[in-house]
Amino acid sequence: MISNKMQTLVANSSVIRAMFEEGKKLSDIYGEENVFDFSIGNPSVEPPETIKAVINDILNEESPNLVHGYMNNSGYEDVRDAIAEHINKKDGLNLTRENLIMTCGAAGGLNIILKTLLNPGDEVIAFAPYFGEYKNYTENYDGKLIEVPTNIETFEPDLDALKNAITPKTRALIINTPNNPTGVIYSEELLKNLGELLDSKQKEFNTSIYLISDEPYREIIYDGAKVPCVLKYYRNSFIGYSYSKSLSLPGERIGYIVANGQMDDFDDVMSSLNVANRILGFVNAPSLFQRVIARSLDAEVDVNIYKKNFDLLYNSLIDMGYSCVKPNGTFYLFPKAPIEDDKKFCNDAKQFNLLLVPGSSFGCPGHFRVSYCVSYDKVKSSLPAFEKLAKLYNLK
Amino acid sequence: MISNKMQTLVANSSVIRAMFEEGKKLSDIYGEENVFDFSIGNPSVEPPETIKAVINDILNEESPNLVHGYMNNSGYEDVRDAIAEHINKKDGLNLTRENLIMTCGAAGGLNIILKTLLNPGDEVIAFAPYFGEYKNYTENYDGKLIEVPTNIETFEPDLDALKNAITPKTRALIINTPNNPTGVIYSEELLKNLGELLDSKQKEFNTSIYLISDEPYREIIYDGAKVPCVLKYYRNSFIGYSYSKSLSLPGERIGYIVANGQMDDFDDVMSSLNVANRILGFVNAPSLFQRVIARSLDAEVDVNIYKKNFDLLYNSLIDMGYSCVKPNGTFYLFPKAPIEDDKKFCNDAKQFNLLLVPGSSFGCPGHFRVSYCVSYDKVKSSLPAFEKLAKLYNLK
Repeated sequence: MISNKMQTLVANSSVIRAMFEEGKKLSDIYGEENVFDFSIGNPSVEPPETIKAVINDILNEESPNLVHGYMNNSGYEDVRDAIAEHINKKDGLNLTRENLIMTCGAAGGLNIILKTLLNPGDEVIAFAPYFGEYKNYTENYDGKLIEVPTNIETFEPDLDALKNAITPKTRALIINTPNNPTGVIYSEELLKNLGELLDSKQKEFNTSIYLISDEPYREIIYDGAKVPCVLKYYRNSFIGYSYSKSLSLPGERIGYIVANGQMDDFDDVMSSLNVANRILGFVNAPSLFQRVIARSLDAEVDVNIYKKNFDLLYNSLIDMGYSCVKPNGTFYLFPKAPIEDDKKFCNDAKQFNLLLVPGSSFGCPGHFRVSYCVSYDKVKSSLPAFEKLAKLYNLK
Repeated sequence: MISNKMQTLVANSSVIRAMFEEGKKLSDIYGEENVFDFSIGNPSVEPPETIKAVINDILNEESPNLVHGYMNNSGYEDVRDAIAEHINKKDGLNLTRENLIMTCGAAGGLNIILKTLLNPGDEVIAFAPYFGEYKNYTENYDGKLIEVPTNIETFEPDLDALKNAITPKTRALIINTPNNPTGVIYSEELLKNLGELLDSKQKEFNTSIYLISDEPYREIIYDGAKVPCVLKYYRNSFIGYSYSKSLSLPGERIGYIVANGQMDDFDDVMSSLNVANRILGFVNAPSLFQRVIARSLDAEVDVNIYKKNFDLLYNSLIDMGYSCVKPNGTFYLFPKAPIEDDKKFCNDAKQFNLLLVPGSSFGCPGHFRVSYCVSYDKVKSSLPAFEKLAKLYNLK
């Protein structure tokens, strides 16, 4: 028998698997071109063309034992130097390699942060809707995830609700900007207010509350939007970053953590992240791709491809009568479901071969997520299905 | 403040860091060529030359979104097929992709196995001397590592001691063959007896006891030695494998788990490994290197380079009067320290600029580990230092 914790998790994951299987079944019956799968957040845009040349250069110029070998568990010093400098230039900071740990994507980064911070029973807050894995990551270390609502007119965090949710057991707050599933970017003013609130609560309870900003979508933004850097607005802050979306390299598991040098117990925290990276079995972020990143700091995927999908899909859905907060980043929409029961709604969508994810998977019922990292043609050919679904619910 | 668990771990790791720092200090004072660092198990032999060509071929022939993208958390189906077939051919088994999970090295593999198996308080047995990380991996999931001695004349497990150590709380036994630090390979007969003992204990307690064989050194063997396949001798068995040593790719974090299809709760176990891979933050083993492995199944590093070091070092140490079980694999020697206090002995070695690891770090005091994955010249030039150390203790 597998462990008690894993029994529940496996049961939940079979629900997700069942959804996948159903999608596959639909494709088998109706043909792949007639099934509109908007359920998965797997980047569809190709990695920048330079990546291939960069890999070749590294293999030709650097020693194989360096490129494929062990290094410090925190990552190569020269790679961390290069990333620190890149962030400093962009955000006017004074980071050094000491502020950075290379990680196995953002998922690996969040896990080593939570292993570092949590004693059993400690509380971690997330704003709903939130990426469901935050609950699993927190429970890996026997922490408890506390959901705090957002204002569903804007999907910005409800700071009054946050104020009431913080207790002496609150160890961390995870935010995700640009946000999965809403696409919303947290403004400078919001981060400032958030920082002030956390700071006053720390003083009130004489605790350290760490802010963890999960930012894999930081570069997937439209219309000149800016993603303010959270490190400027709160001392006890981390950013967890991943190149999965910005360089379309999700399978390579490459990202980093950057920690504010002014945070409480900075030295202990960084040592602990290093040890946690080792003992959880990551050991280090994959070596070749650390070196690829150091040579690809200015590379980016063609975000216009996502933007084109966004324009078509968002405008069409609004025209059809769907209601949706207009995001300016990520490759997700999070429209309101026309009925409270979002699971029933997503189930109804299947009769038109439309695969959508219920908002309750993100702790926010009454909505649904549309993941539009698919081809433009797929978006285009899905519109009649969305139209039929709208008619079924008399949206207009 | 970091979590209680991590405080202890960080304190322990500063001891190791202090050792590194001392080595660096010695190099600064005496020159790197006069310091003999035998403390680290970092492969010194280059990866096979084919690796570079294989990477080029993949980048030229396969789609970038496939090569760098997400796949099933268990790994690419075609890669798992290829590895299963390779093992089947070598060991006469009938594995399929369903028996395999691609992992972030053996360290990632062991972690997801233990997360799958352990409830708090469950016991995991290891034979001393053992790789120190087993304790950390076990404690990640609130398990308890139980040390069982080996016969120090042969470093083969003491099965009588094992028999007495197994309790109703025993969930797993970790073995490591070829062994770090002793270099010993477990024989077919030993594995057979071990399997029978575990089986009788399972029946006695009406439990499932899983055998986990950690085999990163499986290909680093000499003189036609064979490493028998544990899956043949015990139903509830896993192998955790890594290409870190066999292909000198430790930084790339690529390995796999293979599970015996006849094990108790096989389907649940495999589902749980898949989910644990995801929620611990590995998500999947690095994608490009999964694809590299599928095209490199017959590649291997030049083991003769290690063998040459072994011959020189082992024979010289014996000539000098050191006593050591003769291993036939890995790149470690585990000689007896001439005094019981192995820490004092390793400290004394430093006066000759010799860096050795005390056996107590492996749960086996009175010995020391010599890691000879260094250049042949380094081994050669270190011999006078070993000689002086032998004289200090009047070994002959």
